[in-house]
Amino acid sequence: MTEVPVFDGDAVMAAVDPSLAIERVRTAFERHATGEWAMPSKVYLDAPPNGDFRAMPARGDGFASLKWVTSFPGNSRRGLPVVTGALLLSDAETGELRAIVDCAAITSLRTGAAAALSAQVLGAADAKSVGIIGCGVNGAWAGRCLAAAAYGPGVCADARPQAAEDLAEELGWRTGGREDAAAQDVVVTVTPGAKPVVVASDLRPGQHFAALGADASGKAELEQAALERCRLFCDDWPQASAGGELSGAVAAGLVERDRVTSIGEVILGRAEGRGASDEITLFDSTGLAIQDLGIAIAVYEAWRQDRVPAALVSL
Amino acid sequence: MTEVPVFDGDAVMAAVDPSLAIERVRTAFERHATGEWAMPSKVYLDAPPNGDFRAMPARGDGFASLKWVTSFPGNSRRGLPVVTGALLLSDAETGELRAIVDCAAITSLRTGAAAALSAQVLGAADAKSVGIIGCGVNGAWAGRCLAAAAYGPGVCADARPQAAEDLAEELGWRTGGREDAAAQDVVVTVTPGAKPVVVASDLRPGQHFAALGADASGKAELEQAALERCRLFCDDWPQASAGGELSGAVAAGLVERDRVTSIGEVILGRAEGRGASDEITLFDSTGLAIQDLGIAIAVYEAWRQDRVPAALVSL
Repeated sequence: MTEVPVFDGDAVMAAVDPSLAIERVRTAFERHATGEWAMPSKVYLDAPPNGDFRAMPARGDGFASLKWVTSFPGNSRRGLPVVTGALLLSDAETGELRAIVDCAAITSLRTGAAAALSAQVLGAADAKSVGIIGCGVNGAWAGRCLAAAAYGPGVCADARPQAAEDLAEELGWRTGGREDAAAQDVVVTVTPGAKPVVVASDLRPGQHFAALGADASGKAELEQAALERCRLFCDDWPQASAGGELSGAVAAGLVERDRVTSIGEVILGRAEGRGASDEITLFDSTGLAIQDLGIAIAVYEAWRQDRVPAALVSL
Repeated sequence: MTEVPVFDGDAVMAAVDPSLAIERVRTAFERHATGEWAMPSKVYLDAPPNGDFRAMPARGDGFASLKWVTSFPGNSRRGLPVVTGALLLSDAETGELRAIVDCAAITSLRTGAAAALSAQVLGAADAKSVGIIGCGVNGAWAGRCLAAAAYGPGVCADARPQAAEDLAEELGWRTGGREDAAAQDVVVTVTPGAKPVVVASDLRPGQHFAALGADASGKAELEQAALERCRLFCDDWPQASAGGELSGAVAAGLVERDRVTSIGEVILGRAEGRGASDEITLFDSTGLAIQDLGIAIAVYEAWRQDRVPAALVSL
C-alpha cells in the first residue's frame, strides 16, 4: 500500500497557471505528433437519459493517465456539474498509481490552453483582439489563457449577460453581442453547437477561429458557408471527424481528410500552418487525452517540488 | 466540491466477504446477460517494456465504474505489484464521483468469486474436493471463495512450495503435486498460461475446471486434447475468444462460437449448463468489468451502512 496524493480543483489551478498550461499542451501535441506519446481511442459509456461517461487514456514522458469524465448536458439545470470525475496518473515504468486529480479543473485548463495555443500557432502575426462567444467555464478559461498569452483586450458575448459581464470584468475586457465578438482577430466559440454562432458574413480577412464547443456529430458552431472559407486545422483527425466541429461537414462529404491539418504537425514544422496573412484559419478542438496527461504531469511535478499541497490517501 | 470515500484493500476485504462476492458476481453475470448492465470493450494502453494498463468501464444498478488496472508481469521479480491501480465509482444518474477503490483487492475478490460461482453453476451436484493449481493471490482467493461456498477440502499445488503451504494451512487443506490437484472434483488453474498445466490424461468424469490464468492470445492452461473433451463455457465471448483460455483454440479454428456458452445465459436459465453428471465442464474466466462493478457497489453500500470506514477526500 502506498500514499497517493489527491488534487482538488484548487490545487490544480494553484499548480498550473495558464502560461504553463499552454506550454504543456504544446508539448503534448508535439510529442503525440512524433509518436512519442500514445493515445488509444477514448471509450464512451452511455448513461441514459442524462449523459455519458468517457474513459480517456494516454501515455507519455514516463506516465500513463486515465481521465474518467462525464458529459451530462442537463446537469447545469439541476445545479450539478456537467463535467466531473477524476484523472488517475500512473507511473508507466512501474505501473504504480502516482496521483488522483480532479478532472473538471484539468479539462478547463487544457481546453482553454488549446485555444490560446492555436492562436499562437495559427493566428496572424499581428492578431491581438479576442472574441469569446460562450462565456461558461471553458470559455472563461480560453479567455484567461489568451490573456496570459498577451492577447486582448476582448469582447465577451453570451446569451446569459451575467456570464459575459463576469468574464469581462475579471479580464478588464468588455461585453458585446455575438456579431461584435465574431469580428475580432481571434474568436473562440464555446457554445453547445446546436446552432451556428458564426456565419459567413461575420468573417474578416486574417481572422483565427477556435471552435471548442461542438462535441458530437451533427453539432457545429460555424455555418457550412463560413467553414468553407477557412483553412482547416484540428487537434486529432479521428476525434474531429467523428464528433467535432468538422464532423457534420465530413459526414456530408464536404470536407475530406487531406484538407485538414493536425496542429501537432504544424508545431513540429512538418506541415504548413497559416499561409497568407489574410487567410482565415479554423482550429477544431475536440480535447485530447494527451492534453490531460500533460497538465496532470505538471500538477504532479508541482507537488513533488513542494509548490502545492495535497491530501494523501492509502491505496 | 464533494467528499469522496477512498477504500484501500483492507477496507474492500472488510466490506465484502467471499460469500457476498459470489452473490454479487452472480448478479453481475445475470444482469449483463439480460442487458440491464452495460459493458463497453476494455481499452488497452501499452506501456513497453513492462506491461500494459487497462481501462474497464461498466454500468449497472444506478452506478458507472471504471477500473484502471495494470498487468506488469515482471513486477513480482522487482517487488512491485503485477496488478495495481484504482476503480472509480460514479453515480450513473447524476454523474457524480461516489468512491475511489483499490483495484487489486477488487480484482482478487471478483476473480476468486467467479471460480466459485462457476463451480456452483456448472459443477456436478456432488462435486466437493478442490484442486488449486497456482496458489498466488488470485489462486488463494479462488480457494477462499470455494471454501466459503462449502467446497473442499482441497489440494494446493504450486511450483513455489511456500505459496501452496501457506494456502493449505490457511484453509485446512493439504499440499500436493500438479497431478494430484488436477484430479479433484473442482480444479482451478491460475498460472501464467505459458504452458499447459492440465493434460488430457488428468481428466476424470464429472470434473469442473475453472481456467483463470490465461489472459492473452496464445496462452492456455489446458492442452488442446484436454480442452476438446470439455463442455465449454466462458464469462464473455468477445473477451474469451480474443484473449482467454479458449483464444488459442479459437484462432486455430478448433473452437467455434456456438460451442461455447456464456455463464450468464446458464444462470438466467436461457441456456443449458452441465448435461450428464459425468460430463467435464470448463469455464474460461477472463474477468469482466461488470464483476468489478458488482463488488465496488457492495463496498460502497457497506460504507453507506457504516459497516466499514473510509478516508474522505475532496474532489
